[in-house]
Amino acid sequence: MRRKGLASMAVQTVATSSETTVDLGPAAALSCRECGHRVPLGPVFACEECFGPLEIAYDFSAYDTEELRRRIEAGPANIWRYAPLLPVPADVAGKPNLNPGWTKLVKADNLARELGVTGGLYVKDDSGNPTHSFKDRVVAQALEAARAFGFTTLSCSSTGNLAGAVGAAAARAGFRSCVFIPHDLEQGKVVMAAVYGGELVGIEGNYDDVNRFCSELIGDPAGEGWGFVNVNLRPYYAEGSKTLAYEICEQLGWRLPDQIVVPIASGSQLTKIDKGLQELIKLGLVEDRPYKIFGAQAEGCSPVSTAFKAGHDVVRPQKPNTIAKSLAIGNPADGPYVLDIARRTGGAVEDVTDEQVVDAIKLLARTEGIFAETAGGVTVGVTRKLLERGLLDPAKTTVVLNTGDGLKTLDAVAGTGLTATIRPTLDSFREAGLA
Amino acid sequence: MRRKGLASMAVQTVATSSETTVDLGPAAALSCRECGHRVPLGPVFACEECFGPLEIAYDFSAYDTEELRRRIEAGPANIWRYAPLLPVPADVAGKPNLNPGWTKLVKADNLARELGVTGGLYVKDDSGNPTHSFKDRVVAQALEAARAFGFTTLSCSSTGNLAGAVGAAAARAGFRSCVFIPHDLEQGKVVMAAVYGGELVGIEGNYDDVNRFCSELIGDPAGEGWGFVNVNLRPYYAEGSKTLAYEICEQLGWRLPDQIVVPIASGSQLTKIDKGLQELIKLGLVEDRPYKIFGAQAEGCSPVSTAFKAGHDVVRPQKPNTIAKSLAIGNPADGPYVLDIARRTGGAVEDVTDEQVVDAIKLLARTEGIFAETAGGVTVGVTRKLLERGLLDPAKTTVVLNTGDGLKTLDAVAGTGLTATIRPTLDSFREAGLA
Repeated sequence: MRRKGLASMAVQTVATSSETTVDLGPAAALSCRECGHRVPLGPVFACEECFGPLEIAYDFSAYDTEELRRRIEAGPANIWRYAPLLPVPADVAGKPNLNPGWTKLVKADNLARELGVTGGLYVKDDSGNPTHSFKDRVVAQALEAARAFGFTTLSCSSTGNLAGAVGAAAARAGFRSCVFIPHDLEQGKVVMAAVYGGELVGIEGNYDDVNRFCSELIGDPAGEGWGFVNVNLRPYYAEGSKTLAYEICEQLGWRLPDQIVVPIASGSQLTKIDKGLQELIKLGLVEDRPYKIFGAQAEGCSPVSTAFKAGHDVVRPQKPNTIAKSLAIGNPADGPYVLDIARRTGGAVEDVTDEQVVDAIKLLARTEGIFAETAGGVTVGVTRKLLERGLLDPAKTTVVLNTGDGLKTLDAVAGTGLTATIRPTLDSFREAGLA
Repeated sequence: MRRKGLASMAVQTVATSSETTVDLGPAAALSCRECGHRVPLGPVFACEECFGPLEIAYDFSAYDTEELRRRIEAGPANIWRYAPLLPVPADVAGKPNLNPGWTKLVKADNLARELGVTGGLYVKDDSGNPTHSFKDRVVAQALEAARAFGFTTLSCSSTGNLAGAVGAAAARAGFRSCVFIPHDLEQGKVVMAAVYGGELVGIEGNYDDVNRFCSELIGDPAGEGWGFVNVNLRPYYAEGSKTLAYEICEQLGWRLPDQIVVPIASGSQLTKIDKGLQELIKLGLVEDRPYKIFGAQAEGCSPVSTAFKAGHDVVRPQKPNTIAKSLAIGNPADGPYVLDIARRTGGAVEDVTDEQVVDAIKLLARTEGIFAETAGGVTVGVTRKLLERGLLDPAKTTVVLNTGDGLKTLDAVAGTGLTATIRPTLDSFREAGLA
C-alpha cells in the first residue's frame, strides 16, 4: 500500500518535469527495474506502471574503450573522473561540491595474515571522504540532479551519516538544506548534523514517523522545490555507489576483484556495485571474469542474511537491534535484488553478532591502523566468518568495504582504554612490565 | 636547565648511532639551527655545542628542476611524491605506512565572499588525512627514521591527535607502540588512541609530568629501541610539515601563495612551511616572489602573538586556557623562529577568543561544508581578524590551514542543535515556518 501511494505521487511529479530538458550527461531516461518501462529524467522514483523502482538508463554507445580509459585516468582525483558514466553534466567538476571519492584501496597484508588470506586482501576505506562516510558519493549525485531540476532545498530523513553529508554538500553548493531526524537523537549526532548551519528539524516520533512525514511533504505544495536525496532523487543518488566499483577496479589496475564483501542496509549499495562492475565489463574497461559479491549484515538486523540462508526469495522485515545503526534497516528495499546478485555470482550473505562487530573493528585498527565505523566491523567480521565457513576463497583477490569512520561510532568501542596506569617514574614503568 | 639535560642525553645517543650508516634519501646530516654544527644522522635532537635544535641538512645538488617536477607529478597521491625532498629512503612508498597527505586544497569562494577576499581564498584541509589530522604527515617521517635506526617501539607523549596518529602508524607498520597520556584524559580521547591496540599508558600527573617522564625514559636503558616521534626523532618528524608547503604550491599550479595563515602550537609547523617554500624557490620549482606567513593562536594560549604585538624577540611562557587544546602549548619551542619568519616575510601573529573560534568553526562549516577542529577555528577566526585589521590583503591569494577534524573536538560546538522541533504533520511543519 505504501509503495502505491509513493508511486502515484511520483507520477504526478513526472508530468511536471517531463516538460523541461535536463542535461545529466549520459543519463538518457529512467527505466523501471521490474518492467523496463521508461520515463523521461525527472524527480521520480517509482514506476507508474508497476510501482517498481526506477533507475538510470544510460547511453554509452559513443564511447571508445581506450579513449574512455585515458579520459578517466586524466580526470580529477575524485568521483568526477567517472563523470562519463554518471548522471551528471560533463562540466560537473567545475561546480561547487565536496568532490568525494578516490579514497584509498589499502592492501591489508597484516589483516590478510591474521585471516589466512593469501590471494591479496584489500580494504576500500571510504572513511577518507569529506564527511567520512560513503554517503558523500551518493549525495553528490543527488545534488547534481537537484541542480538540474531547479530545486533550491536539499533534504533527507536520517539518523546519522546522511544528515551530515547532506548538510555539508548543501552548504558548499549554496543550497538551503533541511534535514529531518527523530527529535531524541543522541547529542553527538545532532551536533555533527547541525554544524553545517542548515535547518535541522527534530520530529516528535521515531524514524518511521520521520520517513512517513517526508513522503507526505514531497506530495504537498509545501515541498515544492525540495529535493529529498534518498526519496524523489533516489534514482540519481543511488548511482553514486557505482563509483566504489569503478575505483576498486581502476585501483587494482583495471581488474575485477575475485570477491567483494559489501555491507547491506537498504541493499542499494550492493546492487549498484554489481551494476558498476557490469558496466565496466560491457565497456571493455576490465576483462570479463567471474566475480562473487558477498553481503554483510549485523545479526540484530539480518533480514537479507536470514532469507539467503533459508533459500527464500522474499525478505521478511525485522525490528533492528544492533550497534551497527547505519545498517539498521529492517525492511531493506533492495533485499530481493541483493539475494539475486549473491546467488547469481556465487556469493553469499552472512551476519555477525555485535560482539563480533566490535572485535572486527579492533582487529582492523590493530592490523592496519584503520578505525572503522560499526558498518566496517560488520564487513570485516563477516569476511572472517565467511573464510571460516569456506565460502570465501582465501587464495583469491578479496576487497572488503569500510563505508564509514570510527569517530562517528565511538560508543561501540567505549570499553577500550588504558592498558596500564603508572606513576611518572622509571620504577613504576618497570613494575608495570612495560620495558 | 631543562634544555641542557636533554642535550646531554642527545649526545650520549649520537655516540651510539653514528657508527651505523642509514639511508634516509637526500638527508645528509643533522645541523644545528643556532650554530650550524653538523652531526651524522641519528636519533638526536639537540646540538652538543650550543643545545640548539637540530634539523635535517639535505643534499639536493644533483636535482634537475624539470626532471624533479616530472618525478613529483608522476608520484603517488600522498606525501611520498615528495620523497626526493624528505628524510626518507627512495623506496619509502613501498613500505607499510598510512600514506598520508595530498589532501584537498579547497577553493573557498563562499567563505571569500563572507570575508571580502577577492584575490582567491583556499582552505588546505588536512582533516582528510588517515587519522584526520596533519599529525599523520609528521609521524610518517618519524616512522621511517625509526625504521632506519632499528627502533622497534614507536612512542610519544600526547593529549590528543598525536596519540591516534602514532598508534595507527605503528599498527600498520608492524611496530609496537607505547603512548603516554595523562591518566585522567576524557574517555573519548582515550578510546580514539586505544583502538589501535598498542600500549596506552596513563601517567598519574599532568602533561608536563608525562613529558618529563618520557625524557627520563629516553636516557634510560629501559628506553632502548624506543623512538619517541616528537623527542628523539623530532628532527625527522618536524620535516613532515614541509609537505604542506609543497602540496599548496603544487596544487596552486607550482605557484607560491601570497599569504598563508598557519596555526601555532610549538611553532614547528610554521617554521617548516617556511623551510618548504624556501626549498621550492631554491630548486626552481616555483618563481621567487614575496610571500607573507601569518601565525594564529587562541587568546587563551597566545605567547607568540603576545610577543609579536609587543615587539619582543623572547616568548614568555603562558599557562594555557583555551578550547583549542591541540594548540595549547604555553612554552612553544619554536616561538622565536616564528617571530623571525612573521617579521621577515611581512606577516603577523594574531589571536582570537574561544568564542571567535567557535564562530569561525561554524562559519567554515556553513560556507564550505568543512567541519574543522578547534585549530581550524583559530586559523579561520584569525584570518577574519587580520582582514579587519588590514594586515591581510583581500586582493591577494590566501591559504588558510585546517589541520584537524571537527569530529575530534565535538564539545566545542556542543551548543549547536536542532533549529526546530515539530510533530510529524504538515500543519506542524507550516506552523514552524519551514515551508
